[in-house]
Amino acid sequence: MLQLYFFPMACSLASRIALMEAGIEARYHLANIWTKKVADDDRDFRSVSPKGAVPVLVLENGQHLTESAAVLQYIADRKPETGLAPPPGDPDRYRLQEWLSFIGAEIHKAFLFPTFWYKDDASLAKPRARIGQTLSVPSAHLADREFLVGDRFTVADAHLTWALLLLRAAGIDVAQWPSLSAYHARMQARPQVKAAIGIEAALRKTLAA
Amino acid sequence: MLQLYFFPMACSLASRIALMEAGIEARYHLANIWTKKVADDDRDFRSVSPKGAVPVLVLENGQHLTESAAVLQYIADRKPETGLAPPPGDPDRYRLQEWLSFIGAEIHKAFLFPTFWYKDDASLAKPRARIGQTLSVPSAHLADREFLVGDRFTVADAHLTWALLLLRAAGIDVAQWPSLSAYHARMQARPQVKAAIGIEAALRKTLAA
Repeated sequence: MLQLYFFPMACSLASRIALMEAGIEARYHLANIWTKKVADDDRDFRSVSPKGAVPVLVLENGQHLTESAAVLQYIADRKPETGLAPPPGDPDRYRLQEWLSFIGAEIHKAFLFPTFWYKDDASLAKPRARIGQTLSVPSAHLADREFLVGDRFTVADAHLTWALLLLRAAGIDVAQWPSLSAYHARMQARPQVKAAIGIEAALRKTLAA
Repeated sequence: MLQLYFFPMACSLASRIALMEAGIEARYHLANIWTKKVADDDRDFRSVSPKGAVPVLVLENGQHLTESAAVLQYIADRKPETGLAPPPGDPDRYRLQEWLSFIGAEIHKAFLFPTFWYKDDASLAKPRARIGQTLSVPSAHLADREFLVGDRFTVADAHLTWALLLLRAAGIDVAQWPSLSAYHARMQARPQVKAAIGIEAALRKTLAA
């Protein structure tokens, strides 16, 4: 059985959404990215993954796979019939990779990272100035599309759905981009997405308390 | 013929290395990421790609593909016989995606981006504090390996070779990590890598002048 090390509402939420949308049962281990402890047994999370970051997917052969872009494609390819990723060789597979990279690099690392690092307006000016331009890209793309890639839900949608949740926590009102906002509502109305977010939001609250 | 919009010594250098290692002839267009002008004809680069970022690969059907992780895999898959990417379905393909994500997100966006944004030590403290931990990951991995993935040069090596060049420009002395430093020297000794860097270093000098 696949195992996922996650932190509630962190980017590993996209992997949980993917697993649930794929109908793959998995074991979930909460890794506290602040204390670097695994909740199950208080182990140092860096003994699981030297990066100390989620997601970590433990494959059935015991190997550990990290990085959302890789983990999400791995999960999708386990259940090709669900269409969570276009098949390898399909031109849309590169579009999926393009979106996974954009969400991971431009939204997560270039905006959310500095936003959670810095408290002063001077340092925050740079990422804040970029985010409008960044979000205009998926906003324009989704103006006349239901999903990021092709005509069905893919792991890129799982990734963006997570990122948009975090943007709210980072003080960005996604309602400024009506097509993004409508997309986000559509994605969150999917039963598996809703269930995954519900599980992690509840867990996150117990940690904050 | 494929066409690549690039800026000399920016991350699009990895795509040039991949094209040259694959033996693919391409047309190269210099896009100035500072002025957002295409050098050929002074067009607004954002009319080529709304992201205003390199690389942009123009496919033979006229479509534009962006994001290094996607562009590099696309180039590699055009010449599977060169082994620049493990074939889809091979477990190592996910390792390739893992490294492309790590280099793009952790080295490029989480370190190089803020390093080029900020000038004051207070703001730079965060990314500087992270980079040692970040680089310890490929450093440990390469301690007993010649390449990042499997036993041959892949597009992940093209990506890391570029990132390590930029780290030098960002004030990080890679010699602190002997396995990375030795790896970087090996990669730069490859004829196509050396030629690609030579072309872009020379072009970059003309822009700085």
